[in-house]
Amino acid sequence: MSERNLTLLTDLYELTMMQGYFKEKDANETVIFDAFYRNNPVNSGYSICAGLEQVIDYVKNLHFDESDIDYLRSVGLFEEDFLEYLRGFHFSGDIYAIPEGTVIFPREPLVKVIAPIMEAQLVETALLNIINHQSLIATKAARVVYAAQGDGVMEFGLRRAQGPDAGIYGARAAMIAGCIGTSNVLCGKMFDVPVKGTHAHSWIMSFPDELTAFRTYAKLYPDACILLVDTYDTLNSGIPNAIKVFKEMREAGIPLTFYGIRLDSGDLAYLSKKAKKMLDEAGFPDAVISASNDLDETLIASLKMQGAAINSWGVGTNLITSKDCPSFGGVYKLAAVLDKNSGEFIPKIKLSENAEKITNPGDKTIQRIYDKKNGKIIADLICFVDETFDTNEPLLLFDPISTWKKTLLQPGTYTMRELMIPVFKDGVCVYDSPKVMDIQKYCKQEMNTLWEESLRLEYPHRVHVDLSDKLWKVKNELLDSYHHNMDGSKQE
Amino acid sequence: MSERNLTLLTDLYELTMMQGYFKEKDANETVIFDAFYRNNPVNSGYSICAGLEQVIDYVKNLHFDESDIDYLRSVGLFEEDFLEYLRGFHFSGDIYAIPEGTVIFPREPLVKVIAPIMEAQLVETALLNIINHQSLIATKAARVVYAAQGDGVMEFGLRRAQGPDAGIYGARAAMIAGCIGTSNVLCGKMFDVPVKGTHAHSWIMSFPDELTAFRTYAKLYPDACILLVDTYDTLNSGIPNAIKVFKEMREAGIPLTFYGIRLDSGDLAYLSKKAKKMLDEAGFPDAVISASNDLDETLIASLKMQGAAINSWGVGTNLITSKDCPSFGGVYKLAAVLDKNSGEFIPKIKLSENAEKITNPGDKTIQRIYDKKNGKIIADLICFVDETFDTNEPLLLFDPISTWKKTLLQPGTYTMRELMIPVFKDGVCVYDSPKVMDIQKYCKQEMNTLWEESLRLEYPHRVHVDLSDKLWKVKNELLDSYHHNMDGSKQE
Repeated sequence: MSERNLTLLTDLYELTMMQGYFKEKDANETVIFDAFYRNNPVNSGYSICAGLEQVIDYVKNLHFDESDIDYLRSVGLFEEDFLEYLRGFHFSGDIYAIPEGTVIFPREPLVKVIAPIMEAQLVETALLNIINHQSLIATKAARVVYAAQGDGVMEFGLRRAQGPDAGIYGARAAMIAGCIGTSNVLCGKMFDVPVKGTHAHSWIMSFPDELTAFRTYAKLYPDACILLVDTYDTLNSGIPNAIKVFKEMREAGIPLTFYGIRLDSGDLAYLSKKAKKMLDEAGFPDAVISASNDLDETLIASLKMQGAAINSWGVGTNLITSKDCPSFGGVYKLAAVLDKNSGEFIPKIKLSENAEKITNPGDKTIQRIYDKKNGKIIADLICFVDETFDTNEPLLLFDPISTWKKTLLQPGTYTMRELMIPVFKDGVCVYDSPKVMDIQKYCKQEMNTLWEESLRLEYPHRVHVDLSDKLWKVKNELLDSYHHNMDGSKQE
Repeated sequence: MSERNLTLLTDLYELTMMQGYFKEKDANETVIFDAFYRNNPVNSGYSICAGLEQVIDYVKNLHFDESDIDYLRSVGLFEEDFLEYLRGFHFSGDIYAIPEGTVIFPREPLVKVIAPIMEAQLVETALLNIINHQSLIATKAARVVYAAQGDGVMEFGLRRAQGPDAGIYGARAAMIAGCIGTSNVLCGKMFDVPVKGTHAHSWIMSFPDELTAFRTYAKLYPDACILLVDTYDTLNSGIPNAIKVFKEMREAGIPLTFYGIRLDSGDLAYLSKKAKKMLDEAGFPDAVISASNDLDETLIASLKMQGAAINSWGVGTNLITSKDCPSFGGVYKLAAVLDKNSGEFIPKIKLSENAEKITNPGDKTIQRIYDKKNGKIIADLICFVDETFDTNEPLLLFDPISTWKKTLLQPGTYTMRELMIPVFKDGVCVYDSPKVMDIQKYCKQEMNTLWEESLRLEYPHRVHVDLSDKLWKVKNELLDSYHHNMDGSKQE
């Protein structure tokens, strides 16, 4: 991705607003924007954040080349002095973010941009595009992997992904969340993740008969011999022919290390149990029974409940598109403006009739609070960056909407960890993205910090995301001041 | 896209199968694959095909560079002679396709690849990825544009698209289907389509008050002055402030050519009617009232029914992800294998317990049959390429499943048009993709060939897709021969 110039991957209004800032106000005014989201997708109890590496690539590579400038001139909205400014544009600000693979919850800033307003404004669209997409697919994949209860889940969705990037970066996100491999070769090359796959119906159909197709495949790939058995008739042709080939391999002294069948149609519960019986009776109890065909976490959980004899899952369309909830809904909102005189950030707020949609003002971070006994998450606390906490003191948590809901944490019973880390300082990247397979390991640990009640697929327990006392007070003061000035004309 | 090497944008099994063909059979065996789909997305009565230009770019650019070869070697599955073959790989076959922007129906070949099996197999995944994505979004956008009944629809979804390509090519597809513009600047640059947009809440919030923000915007962009009115309070602050600015513009003698407001939250029916009244009373009856916020074709149709005073629509998430149906479901199936001795294609078929899933064998094309009186589509006829039809003869159409359902077309009452055109011949591209805005014009004509009953959003009339008598007979002979040989071992 770093070779592509994605600088114009932005909404036109970012550029018209930039020209406005350039012309009408101090273009160097430093501001803070937060990227956050309001609801977990797919009614999940959590999300997994992903995409930061691509955001970093994008920010590093930001520049308007001559063809970009020429194009913008042709749009007819931009003046030469502004275009000249763009010619020298680069990102000079700070970025903080939650590392990829972290469990996240609604309303938490995932990425915080502190930069001159021109720069902070420009990056909005691409930053959201990347974080929204990969966090969506990572969250979906985490649920699928959870449903598979330790069986391997393979990502097979490239052909149904929403374009090449959706296939490539969707597979990357799926790997972060615990898939054991992807069919996507380009993703494998770009991110050094395992690629997997066997053959399609066309392989079978291109031979005179199914048995010949199987035999040929087994000869070529004896170490990874998963045969697709449903081209003609699963029970009467596919499985018997597969067993015949496995017997021939055994008789020829070929070690049967990784072998088995793939079911891609029909009633997977019924067929897998039948297949298991046939393979057991033929002396192949360790054969892999792999299934694909419109799987998702709900169907996998249901097949598990029905006792399906499947121990390997290939998941395509429903994972790579997050079919039942194909968008993540991250937004990017102004949180503060630097007052040059005082050198302090003035918190900003966006109102809404819906309490959930009112933004959290100021320069914030997130403290995650864990139960010291078992390492599980008790709650997250959104607070200002300059607040300090002492875990040897009691900590009173309260719901920011229903403030009478309170929890008092006793000293020494909890630990805290700040989630946001510095990624850019003064325009220089100060963060090395881990390799995808290392992020996967970290993500697995992160999943272990969730209570089973939050992991469950249906009606999960919602983890509390509270505001610090100080942040809550600042927010309410701002709200009060707006309600005293309903026309929005005196907000400062 | 043409700069990116997407050769490895494929499922691993395409490559393992290719090595199998290379090792075990005549790798130059010529085959025919069809890309088709089984159901219109979103319960639509039709689909719009899109993506061909990107498929062409992909095929033209197919080559394994040294880093690809090195990567494939590292996977551990491929032998040197096969890797050496890949080093010289390029596409040498023929491709036929339905042009972009055409109205299409299930089971019709959208793209037909006639090539050595190695080449035809490799292109499967990327070809499906591209066609599936763009056809999905074009279809969704066509429905949204239809619901807007002539109002302009703008594509605003980049931040929620599934990655950069989904934003870029999704916007391209939306433009094909009739959107009047996109917010996506990179799409505008790449495809010479109109880009549109005004400002965000952050523009308002970055000024001391809303009125100042509006005034500043109006000063900068008097010719396209659409003011976002819901940052603080739509009716009590946003609209009154917008009217104040329009009055100031009028008093200052600035021509109000394209101006108005944008509603982005709340009850759009109620607010738009209130806004219309306020604008009318203030002497601005021609102000644009634009709406955004989780719109789709259903909500637009509902707002129209409620008499909402909206005449411009910004559609984001639900269009760019096709939220209620985010995948198109195109598949790619072997249809025939060339018999070197006879020089004829042997039709191939894939069976299924589901009659709809049985493939159509042979070297096919599609004849579209129109009513001569009004140019509307009567039916599509899938037939062999070498069949000829005479519209001065009667034509008997019959349903390929319920064959007793018959229609006899009288001579001279219908016209026919072959839908598939040559795109590649012997590996050379013989087709110039039209410009996107020209495809949009063509697509508009195409939409006019649909009866109103097929255009409606809910429970549309399904257009008949029939098989020629000859194709139907060949298909049934193949089916019969399989049923006589249930083990799939004697399919030829």
